[in-house]
Amino acid sequence: MVTTQPYDDDKLHEECAVFGIFGHPESAALTALGLHALQHRGQEAAGIVSSDDVQFHAHREIGLVGDIFGDPRVIDRLSGHSAMGHTRYSTTGEPMLRNVQPLFAELEFGGLSIAHNGNLTNAATMRKDLVSRGCIFQSTTDTENIVHLIATRRGAPVERMISALRQVEGAYSIIAMTQDSMVGVRDPLGVRPLVLGRLGDSYILASESCAFDIIAADYVRDIEPGELVVITKDGLRSHWPFPKQKQRFCIFEYIYFARPDSVVEGLSVYDARKRIGVELASEAFVEADVIIPVPDSGVPSALGFSQASNIPFEFGIIRNHYVGRTFIEPSEEIRHLGVKLKHSANRAHVEGKRVVLVDDSIVRGTTSKKIVEMMRLAGASEVHMRVSSPPTNNSCYYGVDTPEREKLLAANNSVEEIRRLIGADTLAFISMDGLYRAMGHDGRNQDQPQYCDACFSGEYPIQLTDRLREHDPRQLSLLAETGG
Amino acid sequence: MVTTQPYDDDKLHEECAVFGIFGHPESAALTALGLHALQHRGQEAAGIVSSDDVQFHAHREIGLVGDIFGDPRVIDRLSGHSAMGHTRYSTTGEPMLRNVQPLFAELEFGGLSIAHNGNLTNAATMRKDLVSRGCIFQSTTDTENIVHLIATRRGAPVERMISALRQVEGAYSIIAMTQDSMVGVRDPLGVRPLVLGRLGDSYILASESCAFDIIAADYVRDIEPGELVVITKDGLRSHWPFPKQKQRFCIFEYIYFARPDSVVEGLSVYDARKRIGVELASEAFVEADVIIPVPDSGVPSALGFSQASNIPFEFGIIRNHYVGRTFIEPSEEIRHLGVKLKHSANRAHVEGKRVVLVDDSIVRGTTSKKIVEMMRLAGASEVHMRVSSPPTNNSCYYGVDTPEREKLLAANNSVEEIRRLIGADTLAFISMDGLYRAMGHDGRNQDQPQYCDACFSGEYPIQLTDRLREHDPRQLSLLAETGG
Amino acid sequence: MVTTQPYDDDKLHEECAVFGIFGHPESAALTALGLHALQHRGQEAAGIVSSDDVQFHAHREIGLVGDIFGDPRVIDRLSGHSAMGHTRYSTTGEPMLRNVQPLFAELEFGGLSIAHNGNLTNAATMRKDLVSRGCIFQSTTDTENIVHLIATRRGAPVERMISALRQVEGAYSIIAMTQDSMVGVRDPLGVRPLVLGRLGDSYILASESCAFDIIAADYVRDIEPGELVVITKDGLRSHWPFPKQKQRFCIFEYIYFARPDSVVEGLSVYDARKRIGVELASEAFVEADVIIPVPDSGVPSALGFSQASNIPFEFGIIRNHYVGRTFIEPSEEIRHLGVKLKHSANRAHVEGKRVVLVDDSIVRGTTSKKIVEMMRLAGASEVHMRVSSPPTNNSCYYGVDTPEREKLLAANNSVEEIRRLIGADTLAFISMDGLYRAMGHDGRNQDQPQYCDACFSGEYPIQLTDRLREHDPRQLSLLAETGG
Amino acid sequence: MVTTQPYDDDKLHEECAVFGIFGHPESAALTALGLHALQHRGQEAAGIVSSDDVQFHAHREIGLVGDIFGDPRVIDRLSGHSAMGHTRYSTTGEPMLRNVQPLFAELEFGGLSIAHNGNLTNAATMRKDLVSRGCIFQSTTDTENIVHLIATRRGAPVERMISALRQVEGAYSIIAMTQDSMVGVRDPLGVRPLVLGRLGDSYILASESCAFDIIAADYVRDIEPGELVVITKDGLRSHWPFPKQKQRFCIFEYIYFARPDSVVEGLSVYDARKRIGVELASEAFVEADVIIPVPDSGVPSALGFSQASNIPFEFGIIRNHYVGRTFIEPSEEIRHLGVKLKHSANRAHVEGKRVVLVDDSIVRGTTSKKIVEMMRLAGASEVHMRVSSPPTNNSCYYGVDTPEREKLLAANNSVEEIRRLIGADTLAFISMDGLYRAMGHDGRNQDQPQYCDACFSGEYPIQLTDRLREHDPRQLSLLAETGG
Repeated sequence: MVTTQPYDDDKLHEECAVFGIFGHPESAALTALGLHALQHRGQEAAGIVSSDDVQFHAHREIGLVGDIFGDPRVIDRLSGHSAMGHTRYSTTGEPMLRNVQPLFAELEFGGLSIAHNGNLTNAATMRKDLVSRGCIFQSTTDTENIVHLIATRRGAPVERMISALRQVEGAYSIIAMTQDSMVGVRDPLGVRPLVLGRLGDSYILASESCAFDIIAADYVRDIEPGELVVITKDGLRSHWPFPKQKQRFCIFEYIYFARPDSVVEGLSVYDARKRIGVELASEAFVEADVIIPVPDSGVPSALGFSQASNIPFEFGIIRNHYVGRTFIEPSEEIRHLGVKLKHSANRAHVEGKRVVLVDDSIVRGTTSKKIVEMMRLAGASEVHMRVSSPPTNNSCYYGVDTPEREKLLAANNSVEEIRRLIGADTLAFISMDGLYRAMGHDGRNQDQPQYCDACFSGEYPIQLTDRLREHDPRQLSLLAETGG
Repeated sequence: MVTTQPYDDDKLHEECAVFGIFGHPESAALTALGLHALQHRGQEAAGIVSSDDVQFHAHREIGLVGDIFGDPRVIDRLSGHSAMGHTRYSTTGEPMLRNVQPLFAELEFGGLSIAHNGNLTNAATMRKDLVSRGCIFQSTTDTENIVHLIATRRGAPVERMISALRQVEGAYSIIAMTQDSMVGVRDPLGVRPLVLGRLGDSYILASESCAFDIIAADYVRDIEPGELVVITKDGLRSHWPFPKQKQRFCIFEYIYFARPDSVVEGLSVYDARKRIGVELASEAFVEADVIIPVPDSGVPSALGFSQASNIPFEFGIIRNHYVGRTFIEPSEEIRHLGVKLKHSANRAHVEGKRVVLVDDSIVRGTTSKKIVEMMRLAGASEVHMRVSSPPTNNSCYYGVDTPEREKLLAANNSVEEIRRLIGADTLAFISMDGLYRAMGHDGRNQDQPQYCDACFSGEYPIQLTDRLREHDPRQLSLLAETGG
Repeated sequence: MVTTQPYDDDKLHEECAVFGIFGHPESAALTALGLHALQHRGQEAAGIVSSDDVQFHAHREIGLVGDIFGDPRVIDRLSGHSAMGHTRYSTTGEPMLRNVQPLFAELEFGGLSIAHNGNLTNAATMRKDLVSRGCIFQSTTDTENIVHLIATRRGAPVERMISALRQVEGAYSIIAMTQDSMVGVRDPLGVRPLVLGRLGDSYILASESCAFDIIAADYVRDIEPGELVVITKDGLRSHWPFPKQKQRFCIFEYIYFARPDSVVEGLSVYDARKRIGVELASEAFVEADVIIPVPDSGVPSALGFSQASNIPFEFGIIRNHYVGRTFIEPSEEIRHLGVKLKHSANRAHVEGKRVVLVDDSIVRGTTSKKIVEMMRLAGASEVHMRVSSPPTNNSCYYGVDTPEREKLLAANNSVEEIRRLIGADTLAFISMDGLYRAMGHDGRNQDQPQYCDACFSGEYPIQLTDRLREHDPRQLSLLAETGG
Repeated sequence: MVTTQPYDDDKLHEECAVFGIFGHPESAALTALGLHALQHRGQEAAGIVSSDDVQFHAHREIGLVGDIFGDPRVIDRLSGHSAMGHTRYSTTGEPMLRNVQPLFAELEFGGLSIAHNGNLTNAATMRKDLVSRGCIFQSTTDTENIVHLIATRRGAPVERMISALRQVEGAYSIIAMTQDSMVGVRDPLGVRPLVLGRLGDSYILASESCAFDIIAADYVRDIEPGELVVITKDGLRSHWPFPKQKQRFCIFEYIYFARPDSVVEGLSVYDARKRIGVELASEAFVEADVIIPVPDSGVPSALGFSQASNIPFEFGIIRNHYVGRTFIEPSEEIRHLGVKLKHSANRAHVEGKRVVLVDDSIVRGTTSKKIVEMMRLAGASEVHMRVSSPPTNNSCYYGVDTPEREKLLAANNSVEEIRRLIGADTLAFISMDGLYRAMGHDGRNQDQPQYCDACFSGEYPIQLTDRLREHDPRQLSLLAETGG
């Protein structure tokens, strides 16, 4: 596990990350660094809103954090004692600037900035109601519902926010900011992560602990499921707006989304992945000469597999460091040459060898097919594929970009069919219980699973209201806009 | 009068122009051409919204119409049977994209696009009330008040609009568009212009008739003060939402804002200006050798002055065609050289001559001073300045960008003081009655003037509610935004 | 004549202007201003090279002077005591950056910068020879020949330059700069203009005197035909490298190219044009109600015509100030509407009138046709066209961009045929003798004409070597280049 | 070894890569792909020149190959049967477009395109001579000397080229292209690599074999030291213009420059690196708990070290995938926080552990210092550094960008001093003989070393003419240019 995840269109994608810091003279610069550390959770767009004593300042753009906020003049304009930011992986159509978070609104009590990781499952239903009452939506994000709910309620900002969140269903980790406070909240099941950190006297909220490491801040604790914290100059206070429920954290965060150097809910992500490799070796051992990780996310599991199986670990696939998303799509005429922009085989360690490939997941299967083929072309005598997640056969409605169900290879094919499609000699996915064991449990508690694993099991722990009412949760705009 | 007005920061500026066409397959291209013809009314930004049977399409940008809409791909994306557009001269701070009109909102009944020429005098008062009821403003334009008023009313779009406009005070010519209709409306006094045209079966609305000429459309009539017209596929219907009042059209439109080839309220603008020159020659004749217009807006009056006085007309000042707004601001060190980027003297017709300069107005006086100085450097023996408007000594609150009162030269100085400041031998402004005579009246009707002339007289025909309540009508945003 | 010439693709175009100033701390800024005043001579690209005690500094770009050099950081980088610049109207294919002058080369004696207005008639012949000797050309400009001739000669820079120029045929006004000197030279016939000015202790060279006015410098004198001046810190010295010949200045400079406020070879351009109008009125009088100039270059002649004929002068055509070169080319579907982007009729002064249009030249005739048509649509009862140049029926090989001969309307049609093609009731061009009379001569000296008038007469005063040898003088590059 | 090398300013940098393909309808697209695979050899700029039957086509730009040539319209313009390209790591000052290769010149026989990896050691000396003979240089590259030498010689292109190369000293692998041929040549000692490949009927030349893999072409052989191959439609012919000498290939190619999946002079780069790790473990074993590679180039040696020492291999350092070169340079105020943009520690595998770090080289030492510190902050009980190259203490003059000698840590410090400066508990570099053993030799042949190892030994196998004559081999331009 050498690097954070590069973008790969054959993976599931976390849609967002959030970061906020209250009461620091360098708040915008620290937010830029925090977002940079969280870049793997969303590469389409990023934004920062800061607050000084007079005004809020915002900068939002399509692109990577480093490109957008690498210009010191941009950071300089984001003055103020507090700042919050968001990176986004856009889910519908082409990315629109007005959907880039944090959202900002001027309400009766002053300015409000808000950003969200997750997905609301009753967004379309709420929106229809709010529009009929005269609310004008500017974005197509589910997050904007919360802003209008806050705007049309009465009372102090925090009271309005609590009242608004009680209307809301779904998975969410939210950061909000007013002139003199910052709020962090996690949904009652705690599906998405949110952690609390500290740098000197300043509190920090972030999606993952790796955002603290980059600025040498201290990890304090995870925000608890259903907890709402309010940070002001007088310190931090917790509120509990919802009835208590048992946690159902997203298990895919451990498998792929989170950074290997993050510690999530007390567990090292890197170690969790290595342990999945160990479980996989015990569940699906195969005689072989070499264990080869599919770069980059397969590396820790491959290492675990190698250590458990005593089969040597080698880098049999080299990833090209310089591949961006925009590289030349080879023309039809030369594509048949088998052009390999992203990876190449390290022939010396493949030729004549029985190879075990270890990857984290199979979504569409396109990459797996190419990689197996590349091994064969490089002379592998056998190619065995081992996958560190169970078959992905259901869509996620809680903030992860999943292809439509019909494009999920495992939704429509048995393991044997998948094996044939990708061309491997053998194929094994880790079992559900094996996965839970790697997380430190005895296995999956069938009555009340310890995690949200809907993408594997199809059991959805939060009601899918929009889906039941057949409202498309991915709101389309009446307006197609260009310019600017 | 050879050209339309170039931008000049020593002039008053019309803030906007509007254009709309209903039911034409080339609606966006025609709107771009119409806006191009109206470019003199606003050079900061422009936008077009079109409507097809499924969706609205918008393109808004900072810049000139020709630069923004010169790209055929931009026009192609603005598909649909109807389109409307706006050009804007921004009034506060740096131009913000979210203030560029037409505004667009998705309301309960569908999409609504709206654009406005003029200024609402109770905008800040209304906004405060709407925000307290939970409305979230996205722009700092006064126009957005109307959108929220429409959103929070009930009934059909036109009923909502009429109900909304009854809340509104100020000067306005508005075009609005829904999926299946276009609406045009002028305020009860008709301060700002709005004309109706026709191209084949399609109705057109525009700020000036020159926008019809460019697309070879026919001028039908001026929309009347207080009239609201609704254009649908069934034709045009007029509504009269307000009690009738006598018209008070803005007289400065004739002096400077309107294009010389426009016909406004039945009067040719070019001829009106020539007649001002004739009146000026009779009121303020002076023995001289040559009449020289200050380019470009002084030309027709100078020609009128020359024909009435029998003093030869010559182009004693050449304007540089290539001056943009962004040209090199000469450094302090070479500015003292008297660098003249915009104009140069045609020495052969100035040297040793008694010169009469004719200009349309004196606002700050900076240009007048430079021009007089240039005449002296080129050897003029006498320099007489004649101005085809009365002294400009009051701010406009009805949609014209006026400097703060203390920067209006005539607000703080007598005619004699101005003469001394600009360095002329003699100086005369046209009289108020002379001006009204040039418009074809016997003079100004003191009880009920035929025009709005508040910038000269200080008599404001529409209540200045925000000003009375000390609300700043120029709403500042809580958010300073960059990026995109 | 209110403005300098806007770009018009139905005119002939001067290809270039040059400007240089020696020994001034603000040399680059002054050069930018000078080029700005000369912008009418070339709108495709511009460049400035400056020289300080250590290095030369260059900035060259496609675009207008004001856009390129309006950025103070660009000017700041062009440090040094001396600077020279060039604006270019590109003649073949798409403009290439490596053709943008001034050219620069590092020779044995140090850096050399050079810029040229005109055209060499033996460029291709020289180039072939130089390449065979191992010289590597970087541009396709004829100017680069001179650089290689200088590089491969011996001796001091000025000796090399004189030796090089003796190889060269054609029309040229050249400015060159070394570390410690500036050189100006005009070809033996003085076809293209070059004037000498002074600002304090600094000498200035420029294509036209209007470049002095903008920086308040003094006009000293015209550089004489065949004169080469060398400016160093010790002052100015003249050299006469060629046998003396009688001057043959380009008469089209008076008709169209030069700015109206320039004084060329002792004659005011504005006055020359007015006098052409006077001659035209006497040669081709017609009963009419109004004299209307075709904007902008027809204005002074129209004024002269009006004063001589006593027919009133009116601005019957309004030019749109905001037309750039890039504006939307209306689609086929709406072009038939007769869209008029550049001009519109001032109907009040056209309707029912007998109109005399005055224009400077007819090249392709496309504009003339549109303008006559516009007059008819606006209700003119008669339309008479008067042209202040003789029929343009030969290509120029001396630095003016002329369409190929077959596209010159007058090369293939009689005056009566042209009249019919443009749709006028009558049409008259000024006679050759009338034109010379307007310049202050008794008429054209047939044995040895006072001017170069090859575009009218077909008599070419300088040998057309390349053309005789059938070398294409417009060198095409073996390399099509993009990027950068 | 998971990825190709990212840019790191604490490494030595190969300055260039070359690629050419003759006789393929997709030649430009294949060249773009080949350059993409060679991107690790130069990240500043890239260019491609193609040749069709009529013309050459070039596109050169500052930036990465994927960004420049990812636009299919760029590739489409590069039409033709043959193409060649270059990527460049710029060495002096800011990168200038005119230095971006391939260079192109129009010579007597037609167009010539040329690109070069390496460095000429008599470039300045030759340049002085050529300029004195009238040659005009356009770039400051040493490569341009070769172009002028070819231009001023006589005979057929290949004869001219051979004659030119006999004047040249230094390290070079050159590709050149004329209308109907492609030439590849390596300097007599073969310091820089150049390999020959084949795709169908087309020959390919490239700096490394990984450029063949990406387009599924076959590796044929290495071009031999001193060999010049000419490829035409009749096939490939070898020429031997120089007296034979023993090869001195650059040993640093194996240590760092070349891609791990390349095979160079018959040796797998990945395996060579692993074997260095094995040698290092035997030379400098230390008791420890974990072997941690410094990403990314230290990975194969670390794996070799781990396998030889039986100490577990773990990814104790995570590299951030999204770091570009332009990211926010943290302000002074927050830099003291120890911001770690590129790497973060994987605490779980560092805390309480005795750590062996394996890196490929220490140049300035800044990164090593940070990494050791990071290990300590993450709780390492001991930190041992092992380096898979001998101390780098001499500059390279053969095409590698080395800091000035005074900035090479090892040039001025003993191993013990370096250990103290970077803060490690122990430090060991591989021995020279150990390195040669890892390459498959018995050790370094002291009389005639098998490789060029001047950066370690100070023994320079090719004469340093410019340096002896005190000509600065890094030619500075007299012209500082912007624009374009």
